[in-house]
Formats: sequence, C-alpha cells, structure tokens
Amino acid sequence: MSDTISYPLVKRLAAEAVGTAFLLATVIGSGIMGEALSGGNDGLALLANAIATGCMLVVLILIFGPVSGAHFNPAVTLVFALRKDIAPAPAVTYVAVQIVGGVVGVLIAHAMFDLTLIQSSARLRTGGGQWLAEAVATFGLLASILGCVRWRPDAVAYAVGLYITAGYWFTASTSFANPAVTIARTLTDTFAGISTAHAPAFIAAQLVGAAAAFQFFRWLFAPPAGSRGQI
Amino acid sequence: MSDTISYPLVKRLAAEAVGTAFLLATVIGSGIMGEALSGGNDGLALLANAIATGCMLVVLILIFGPVSGAHFNPAVTLVFALRKDIAPAPAVTYVAVQIVGGVVGVLIAHAMFDLTLIQSSARLRTGGGQWLAEAVATFGLLASILGCVRWRPDAVAYAVGLYITAGYWFTASTSFANPAVTIARTLTDTFAGISTAHAPAFIAAQLVGAAAAFQFFRWLFAPPAGSRGQI
Amino acid sequence: MSDTISYPLVKRLAAEAVGTAFLLATVIGSGIMGEALSGGNDGLALLANAIATGCMLVVLILIFGPVSGAHFNPAVTLVFALRKDIAPAPAVTYVAVQIVGGVVGVLIAHAMFDLTLIQSSARLRTGGGQWLAEAVATFGLLASILGCVRWRPDAVAYAVGLYITAGYWFTASTSFANPAVTIARTLTDTFAGISTAHAPAFIAAQLVGAAAAFQFFRWLFAPPAGSRGQI
Amino acid sequence: MSDTISYPLVKRLAAEAVGTAFLLATVIGSGIMGEALSGGNDGLALLANAIATGCMLVVLILIFGPVSGAHFNPAVTLVFALRKDIAPAPAVTYVAVQIVGGVVGVLIAHAMFDLTLIQSSARLRTGGGQWLAEAVATFGLLASILGCVRWRPDAVAYAVGLYITAGYWFTASTSFANPAVTIARTLTDTFAGISTAHAPAFIAAQLVGAAAAFQFFRWLFAPPAGSRGQI
Repeated sequence: MSDTISYPLVKRLAAEAVGTAFLLATVIGSGIMGEALSGGNDGLALLANAIATGCMLVVLILIFGPVSGAHFNPAVTLVFALRKDIAPAPAVTYVAVQIVGGVVGVLIAHAMFDLTLIQSSARLRTGGGQWLAEAVATFGLLASILGCVRWRPDAVAYAVGLYITAGYWFTASTSFANPAVTIARTLTDTFAGISTAHAPAFIAAQLVGAAAAFQFFRWLFAPPAGSRGQI
Repeated sequence: MSDTISYPLVKRLAAEAVGTAFLLATVIGSGIMGEALSGGNDGLALLANAIATGCMLVVLILIFGPVSGAHFNPAVTLVFALRKDIAPAPAVTYVAVQIVGGVVGVLIAHAMFDLTLIQSSARLRTGGGQWLAEAVATFGLLASILGCVRWRPDAVAYAVGLYITAGYWFTASTSFANPAVTIARTLTDTFAGISTAHAPAFIAAQLVGAAAAFQFFRWLFAPPAGSRGQI
Repeated sequence: MSDTISYPLVKRLAAEAVGTAFLLATVIGSGIMGEALSGGNDGLALLANAIATGCMLVVLILIFGPVSGAHFNPAVTLVFALRKDIAPAPAVTYVAVQIVGGVVGVLIAHAMFDLTLIQSSARLRTGGGQWLAEAVATFGLLASILGCVRWRPDAVAYAVGLYITAGYWFTASTSFANPAVTIARTLTDTFAGISTAHAPAFIAAQLVGAAAAFQFFRWLFAPPAGSRGQI
Repeated sequence: MSDTISYPLVKRLAAEAVGTAFLLATVIGSGIMGEALSGGNDGLALLANAIATGCMLVVLILIFGPVSGAHFNPAVTLVFALRKDIAPAPAVTYVAVQIVGGVVGVLIAHAMFDLTLIQSSARLRTGGGQWLAEAVATFGLLASILGCVRWRPDAVAYAVGLYITAGYWFTASTSFANPAVTIARTLTDTFAGISTAHAPAFIAAQLVGAAAAFQFFRWLFAPPAGSRGQI
C-alpha cells in the first residue's frame, strides 16, 4: 500500500481508476442481484453484498497494490499523504480518478442489469448513529491497512476484504468508509444507494475516522524509546 | 499458471480434464442442491452455488496448477497462448479436453442426483446486459490471474476462488466467464443451465473480455522504461 | 500430513482422537443448531453446517497436523498406509481411535444440546447416486490432500476445509467422505444422521474413491522420466 | 500471541482495550443488524453474526498481535500467565482493560444503532448443556491459539477467526468463550445478550475449559524425550 514502487503516474492512475470501477461495480451489482433474488429478505441481500464486496477487495488489492498502492479510497490516500508516503500533487490526482472510476463502476453495474445508467438515490442514511458508524468504520478500515502495512504487508489484501465483510454488518451504516464510494452510491437508486443530501456528512465522518486512525496508530506503533525499530 | 513445468502433455491434459470435470460437477451439483433445499429462495441457492464454486476453484488450482497450469478454461488458455506461455498446438488440445472434461462433470453431477444424464437447458440468458456482464466477468477473471501471476503466484488459487464468488453476485450473468463451462451448462436443465441458442454470444463476449484483459495488463505491468524489471 | 514427525504413538493417537471428536461435535452440533434456527429452510441449515465444518477442519489440521498428520479419517489413513507413510500397525490403531473419537464427539454434541446421548438415525441415504457421490467426494478429498502434500504442504489445512465446504453442496450425499464420520453419524437422529443400514455402502464407496485417488495421483505426480524430481 | 515484544505496558493496554472494544462492537452490532434484517429467521441472523465476528477477529489479531499479543480475553491471558509468557501484574491489568474495552464496545454498538446505551439483558442462557458448551468452546479456542503458536504463528489470526465462526454454530451456547465478552454481553438486551444472573456460570465454565486446554497441550506438545525440540 506504500508509494515506493516506481511506476509512472499514468499507470498508477489507471490502476486506481480500474480498481475503483470494479469495486463500485461489485458494490452496486451485488446489491442489485442480492435484492432481486432474496425474496424481500434484506438480511440475505446484505450477506451477498458483504461477501461479494469483501472477496472482490482482496482480489483488487492483490492485482493493483504493487502498481498504485490500491487505495481506491480518498480517505486512504489522505492518510498516506499525511504519512508522506505519497506527495500532495499525485494524491490529488489519485482522488480525482478514484471518483471518476467509482462513477464508471456504477454505470457498468447499471448497464449490466439493464437499468437507467444514471439514477438519483432516494435512500435515507442520516443521523448521529449513522455518522458515528461511518467514523468507526473508517477508523477500523485504516487500522486494518496501517496494522498490516506495519506488521504483515502480505496480508493487507486479506485484512481489508475481511474487515469490510464484517463492517457491512457491525456498523449501522453498512460501512461505506470511502468518500469515492459514497459519491458513486448517490448515483444509484438501488440497494446500495444513498441520497445525495446525506453524502456530505458521511464523507465528513469518514475523514474524521481516518484522521483519528492516523494519529492513534502513529502513537501506538512508534518504536519504543531507545529501540532501533521493531522487526 | 504458467507453462514452465515439464510434465508430459498427456499428464497435463489429464489434469485439465479432471480439474474441469470437478469444476463443472461443482457448478451444476451445488446449483441442484441449492435449488432443492432453498425453498424457492434463489438468493440462498445462488449463495450456496457461489461459495461451493469458489471454494472448489481454490482447491483445484492448488492441486493441478503445478502440473498443467490449472487453466480449466479456453479463455485462460487463449491468453496464455497470446503470452507465448503455451504453444498453439498444446493450447488446442487443452481446449479440447477442457470441453470434454466439462461435459463429463455435468454427467457426474446428473448421475449423483439421479437425473437424466444429458439434458437440454431452457434457461434464457441473453441480451446486451448479459453480454456486457460476461465481458466484464472474464476481464476480471483474467485480471485476477495475470495480476497474481505477476506479483503473488502463491495467491492465484485464492484470488480466482474469491473472484468467482464475487462474480456470481456482481455480474448480471453470474459470471460464467469460461467457454468450456458455458458449453457444459447447455447440457443441464437445472439451476446453472443456459439455453444452447444463447451460448455462442456468451462465448464471444468472454473472448472479448479475455483479450481486453491481455492487452490492458500487458501495458499496465510492462516494466517502467529504463528499469531492469520490478521486484 | 505425513508420518515423519517423531512423537510417540500415544500422543499421535491422542491427537487423532481429540481431533476427530471435535470434528464430529462440529458436524453434529452445527447440524442441530442450523436446523433449530433455520425455520424449516434446509438450505440455510446446510450452509451453516458446511461453513462450520469447513472452518473447523482448517483449525484442527493446523493444530494436530504436526503431531499425528491430522488424518481424522480411516480413508486418509488407508492412503497414507498405501504410500508407506505410516506402517500397518499404527495405521490400525489410528483407525480405532478415529472411530472412538468420532463417537465421543457425537456424545459431546448431544450433551451440549441436552439431547439423548446415544440415538439411532432414521435418515435414509441410499441408492446409486448417493454411492457415486461418496466415491466422488472421497476421491476429491484425497486429491486435495495429496495435491497439497505434493506442492503446497502449508496449504493442506485450508484446502481440506474449502473442499469439504464445497463438498457439502456439490455431492448428492453432502460428502461424508470419511468412514469414522459415517459410523459416528449413525448414532444421531438429527440433521447430520444416517441410518445404520445405509452406512456400510457409504463406507465401501468411500474406500473405492480413496483408492482410486491414490492410484491416479501416483501416476499423475510421478516425476517425468529422466528428471531428478520436481521443485 | 506471546509476550516477547517490548512495547511499554501503556501501549499494550491500549491495544487490548481498542481491540476488545472493536470485538464487542462487532459481536453486538452484527447481532443487532442481523436480527433487524433477517425477518425473524434467527439462522440467518446467527450466520451474519458468526461471519462478522470471525472476519473481525482475524483483522484485530493481525493489527494488534505484535503489540500486545492480541488476547482480548481474560481466559487467554490466564493461559499465557500459566505459561509464564506474561507476568502476573501486567496480566491483571490486561484483564481489567479487556473488561473496560468490552463495555465500551457495547456502548459504541448501541450508539451506532441509536439504542439505549446501557441495557440489561433478559436473554436466558443457562443449564448443564450450555455450561458444557462453554467449556468445550473455550478449550477449542485455546487449542487453536496454542496449536498455532506452537506450529504456525503466522496462522494464529486466521485460526482464531475460523474457530469462532464454527463455534457460533457447533456449541449450544454460541461460543462466548471469553469472560470479558460475557460481562459485556450482559449489558445489551439484543440478539447477543446474556442475563447477568447467568454470566458467572459461563465464566466459570470458560476458565475450566481454558485450564484444561493448557494442561492437555502442555503434555501433548512437550518435545519427545531425548529430542532437542521439534522444528
């Protein structure tokens, strides 16, 4: 997930765009399929949605991680910028292509299911509980990433997939935990949608959670005084 | 998944045939069992179908990968042929035994469940959305394989299993993503079937998706100019 | 899974007994819980049963594999005896404690759920389709083990767990694939039971499948003539 | 999971507190969400609960294991104290922050779902079968940990997550297997709750199971006489 690999920026941006598009196609597509087949049982639909999203995240991070870091998420890019793992200018371009890629992913999902390509979500997701949930969800997502980057880089892909599978269930908001995902999900009036009016507060909560994780783990993982670093 | 291991062709073909037979027995068998037990809830049937297929793919690639590359899929063999990882003549024999193995797998599933051995599917799967879905599904499958072959060869088996589990849900077509699987699935009038008339367009879309993945990842993963290759 | 570790036989037998007891407690216990909570939907009950059994197998093989080989299954012990990985005398004691351990596991499951400790199953599982299913299931189980022992010993535990999760769904018999499990399952009149009268044919089919896998993979994996062995 | 890493105690306690809070937020939160969405089907709710908890445990142990050992559980801390892997004084502080962290996790779950922050559970979980189940569940959890610490330290996180996913299904008590979790679960009148009056017997059974696992695996894993230790 770090910025040390020297692919040219255009390839890194391509990796971020294609990866985020696949992520959103999965989030939206599996939500549509889940709702269509579950006979009104939203528990079953969410289970399909959670398993599909978690599985896909593992795969996308395995494929694109060594090229771009596989952020697919402005909150992740923000934290890597705070860590100086990515410079501000490429970080801004990362965020831009993540948003564009996410929107393209929604279009692909709608096209596959023969739905109107651009929709407007009527799904209400608001209130203090939801915002707390997004802050907690994003704190945990960054915890997964920062913890594995620190101790088990080979496990980042698995940890993120497992975390999001859990996140769909334990947070009241189903763990969007990603501003690009949140923006893209305003454009679908299906299972995974969110009303445009409710997106900004979600994004604010996500950034708060990400920043808190950055601070907490910077303190927690700092090498003990006098040590030469941890293995 | 590469062609560098020097088993004689007859063993490689045996591995492809047995592996593809097990894959199809799993796709068809778990579809039959899922539909039989789910009390009319197709969401639950598809969940069982997706989990069983994903788990089996991991296992089959672990077992047969070092012998034949564990393609089990003419679209995969095509891409490895384009990469010059397999010569044209053995590639053609791979495709032939994949098709035969897939048909045998269907027969085994039908025999286990005491059904007519050869059936004709009446299941309609057609239209632009379905074809786009198959192209996307196969692009993603090849992305999983090419990405892991490039960066994490030990993870290929896991990535393919996870990808297909997600694919059953996020694509409108449930991700056949495999011409041999498509042909075999015309021979069952059960949950996983597809009408013979609709198979050719599925296969065409799969080959388009596979070729696109080959082109995209050849460009994306090419070592940066002046580098001596990537670690 | 091999016999090269030099623990004394009493410890190896303890590992086989405790492991098989946990395996059966899981098979029976999760069947009881699944049926009790699924509101008559056997698909959901089988999904719980399959996931619980698969997860537990991974764990038990990780724990006990280095002590006893983690066979937990007379069909597996038979194949390792055919391979000369275990001598005939300890193999016989393995099978004996596997059977005893399996019965104890059933007792524990019944005790946990406040059921009569020893029961007699009325569940009919018979016919050519079921017997073919058991032969296929056991062939595949041994394929998973022999393939991973050959190429990826660290993955044996994961492969077996994933294989059995798939096996519950794709085989018409739900993949007992284990004579000790079959015997133990005659003693429970719950979801996972099998009538005593139908057990012998299951066991015969399992041994046929195991022997076929031994023969096939001995041929398939034999080093190419003139090679010094495969990496 | 051992005590050899030299982080200062305050950081180790922070890791235990945050990890246990996330664990409980997941157990309670996914129980609430599962029950809310499953339309009265408790099997589906428990499946969501089990998958979410198992996935989260993997992630939390990956993140916090190298800092504190990732016990999150007084029964685990007890066994590591018996093994002399942690001294008595820090062990007591571990248990204290695990309990506090667990309670905070319940509060967070309730806040996310807009529920009364502190509740009193009316859920009855008592009787010999339940107590046996908790002893078995905790024996198995410690078996997972001690087995992987002995043979496959990198797999501890995965083994614990898989074990608890199975445990929710095969034990009659759904495998609390953790005194801090038990105390915290008395404070929620939702799916995962337990009446306060029934908690002490659960905790006693858990400690019995943990102590039994310590004794059994100390004997089982002891190096064969005359050996210099096992690889």
